[in-house]
Amino acid sequence: MLNELKREVCQANLELVKAGLVLLTWGNASGIDRERGLMVIKPSGVPYSELTPARMVVVAMADGAVVEGRLRPSSDAPTHRVLYGAFPQVGGVVHTHSLHATAWAQARRDLPALGTTHADTWHEAVPCTRALKPAEIRTDYELNTGRVIVERLAGLDPLGCPGVLVASHGPFTWGRSVADAVEHSIVLEFVAQLATESLRLRPGLSAMPAVLRDQHFFRKHGPGATYGQTAPPPPKRHGRQPNRPS
Amino acid sequence: MLNELKREVCQANLELVKAGLVLLTWGNASGIDRERGLMVIKPSGVPYSELTPARMVVVAMADGAVVEGRLRPSSDAPTHRVLYGAFPQVGGVVHTHSLHATAWAQARRDLPALGTTHADTWHEAVPCTRALKPAEIRTDYELNTGRVIVERLAGLDPLGCPGVLVASHGPFTWGRSVADAVEHSIVLEFVAQLATESLRLRPGLSAMPAVLRDQHFFRKHGPGATYGQTAPPPPKRHGRQPNRPS
Amino acid sequence: MLNELKREVCQANLELVKAGLVLLTWGNASGIDRERGLMVIKPSGVPYSELTPARMVVVAMADGAVVEGRLRPSSDAPTHRVLYGAFPQVGGVVHTHSLHATAWAQARRDLPALGTTHADTWHEAVPCTRALKPAEIRTDYELNTGRVIVERLAGLDPLGCPGVLVASHGPFTWGRSVADAVEHSIVLEFVAQLATESLRLRPGLSAMPAVLRDQHFFRKHGPGATYGQTAPPPPKRHGRQPNRPS
Amino acid sequence: MLNELKREVCQANLELVKAGLVLLTWGNASGIDRERGLMVIKPSGVPYSELTPARMVVVAMADGAVVEGRLRPSSDAPTHRVLYGAFPQVGGVVHTHSLHATAWAQARRDLPALGTTHADTWHEAVPCTRALKPAEIRTDYELNTGRVIVERLAGLDPLGCPGVLVASHGPFTWGRSVADAVEHSIVLEFVAQLATESLRLRPGLSAMPAVLRDQHFFRKHGPGATYGQTAPPPPKRHGRQPNRPS
Repeated sequence: MLNELKREVCQANLELVKAGLVLLTWGNASGIDRERGLMVIKPSGVPYSELTPARMVVVAMADGAVVEGRLRPSSDAPTHRVLYGAFPQVGGVVHTHSLHATAWAQARRDLPALGTTHADTWHEAVPCTRALKPAEIRTDYELNTGRVIVERLAGLDPLGCPGVLVASHGPFTWGRSVADAVEHSIVLEFVAQLATESLRLRPGLSAMPAVLRDQHFFRKHGPGATYGQTAPPPPKRHGRQPNRPS
Repeated sequence: MLNELKREVCQANLELVKAGLVLLTWGNASGIDRERGLMVIKPSGVPYSELTPARMVVVAMADGAVVEGRLRPSSDAPTHRVLYGAFPQVGGVVHTHSLHATAWAQARRDLPALGTTHADTWHEAVPCTRALKPAEIRTDYELNTGRVIVERLAGLDPLGCPGVLVASHGPFTWGRSVADAVEHSIVLEFVAQLATESLRLRPGLSAMPAVLRDQHFFRKHGPGATYGQTAPPPPKRHGRQPNRPS
Repeated sequence: MLNELKREVCQANLELVKAGLVLLTWGNASGIDRERGLMVIKPSGVPYSELTPARMVVVAMADGAVVEGRLRPSSDAPTHRVLYGAFPQVGGVVHTHSLHATAWAQARRDLPALGTTHADTWHEAVPCTRALKPAEIRTDYELNTGRVIVERLAGLDPLGCPGVLVASHGPFTWGRSVADAVEHSIVLEFVAQLATESLRLRPGLSAMPAVLRDQHFFRKHGPGATYGQTAPPPPKRHGRQPNRPS
Repeated sequence: MLNELKREVCQANLELVKAGLVLLTWGNASGIDRERGLMVIKPSGVPYSELTPARMVVVAMADGAVVEGRLRPSSDAPTHRVLYGAFPQVGGVVHTHSLHATAWAQARRDLPALGTTHADTWHEAVPCTRALKPAEIRTDYELNTGRVIVERLAGLDPLGCPGVLVASHGPFTWGRSVADAVEHSIVLEFVAQLATESLRLRPGLSAMPAVLRDQHFFRKHGPGATYGQTAPPPPKRHGRQPNRPS
């Protein structure tokens, strides 16, 4: 069942290792089959060297139950499930503790768009969620992690803002496919480090001009895209929520 | 004698190299056979490329004498011996000069719990020892290094605080096995760098909320653990000494 | 057509990956055949693992039209074309988003000559361009990027200043050949990181003494060069525009 | 002639690449045969991939003339020659532009002994030379570079202080053999980065206690050494010049 998706999800998890985004057994990637209402996700705490497509866990979107697989799913599976529920355009979700993105999450700061490298993928800042309330942590913690992400994305197109920083925790990214979600994790880690270094050179540096940001974002996304060999399908023009400093 | 333990200790030392935690011949890992009262440790100053299980040195817990092996044990062997004596739950000890953990040790600061990456392994801050007194340095230096570590752990469960920073020196970590001790060295180096980067982005950043810290620590440790494929055996609930700024 | 140049340009693009200067499909290198008025450049958005000399795109210097190749050229091709037009000594151009050079570009700072490592390749600071005006971004963005680079190089010898930082974007470098342009990208990334680290140790550090800068630059360049096995052909003595803080 | 020394020097140069201390053709290592009064050094500007023992250049200590080899010696050969002349205990010299050591050199700061990692190899701070005067740069630059190093070492045992930072330039290290000089370059780069990171965590951090510094230095050096499998021959007890802030 879902052999192709299992292969893609397994491959995506292994790409996170190759890209240097995960340590030990940390991190997880998932993909969704929307027609069947099933999510495929990495098992919990299994070494990456032992991951195979057959070990991926199939979880029902409806209630989070394990439908197939003898292993326990990633402990973050409920967070993934909330994101798929809220973002119908999304086909894959990734969570890592990659160094620089996690540092921004721990600092509880929105990651501002400081240059074209950022604006090629995120149209505006990478937002940071609010802290969870004690009650939200004590009960249904992983579900509530998904909920504060969705809350933070209000008014934004998830494909124009393909990832967030969860306060005191780390990044979640997503995309049309799980491979896209992995690519967004790679980009996020890079632009996080780039922003850190830029701010070291010019403390208080503010976001890039909106016109330059738009030029780069829409060069790669949407109906007027000119980058690459085929223009990708257009994302919806998304909202213009100002980058709120946290 | 102790062939399996020698193999594990040799392997653990080599894992430190693979993980990028040691330079040249620095660093050492040991394991203990509590029934026989014997400790197995890396020889002193031998290149990692020449380490074999047969070259591991067997030291008596009772008096530190070399029981087997033609090589001199790591110069830090007395420190390991003190830790095994004080922490009966511990089966392996590791010492490195890994970059970021050592920077915190040189800065003589407790490493605060700033996010879930930290709290998955250390329940609270990674404590930094006090400086040794001149007399403690001049006589029995390595033993006294062990003693200030034990002094600093007072009131803490060694499995909830599986490592410390020795002031002006570097990290020591431990665990149920020498493989666990290696894993804790890897985690410590990562959370040390992560904390450094987070503080760069928000100087004065304070520790994460206790409720989030507890949620993550006890998700992985103790009777209610839900992470991984089998819940690990419960560590004792350990004391709540406040993170003392150094 | 231009098989040797295609091979060199393909090789140069792959060297950028090996040197750790590009992520994903970012970055591009080109070379020029001045006799034929043709530029060879990397195709847009093609994975580096799929680059072959035959996939390089040939573009006419006169009007930017694709003369050969079934793929779309790099979206930065017009910028390259402007640089070749303005700098007749130049045989190759490279653009990357390498971490530290891009951080300086995002910080919109000239990269000062702080030591001999810098002065061996750049005679003075690596200049940062002014920001493009909104109208320059909205229309002919890539051409205008080339124009602000040329504007910034006014009065400087392009071979004594073989690269710039484009504000809020990233570095462009060049050289007598595309291989030289790659080497300059490697050097620029290193001296950018070196300057960042030096400024961390001594905030406000000013540029090195001019006499030391001249000694190193002219040890490697020009008629009195003594470095290497053959002295390179002499660049023109270039102007002495002061390092303008941006 | 000098085949064994040529092999060692060639190997040492290649070790610098493996250790990540050199970029492109930068850096050079040499060894000396004191009985014959000959120095063997890397050729200038030759790619590391093309280095072979036969390509090493033999230079006369007496006058710096090339005695054997068809290639031009490293442009820094005169600096090496001055160091061998002044430090009779030294058998090998290395120069690199390694990132962190060079950053300290560019910042023109002595690198303070902040922890045991440093004191295991340098008994005190790694000193930074004074800047060369314009006349010293214009004439006999490379010889004068050696002379300011020797001037800075006045009163120090070269084996207790096996390297310096040349202001606005980079590190030179040395040792009993060229292999030792390479090891000291590796250690210097590490302790330079470690000091940078420590100072980030505690700006204004002062040097470690002298008693701890002595304990570690003399654990590895001199008649009472206990580190490794054989105690190395004793260096002379060297002077106690205070670490001068630059």
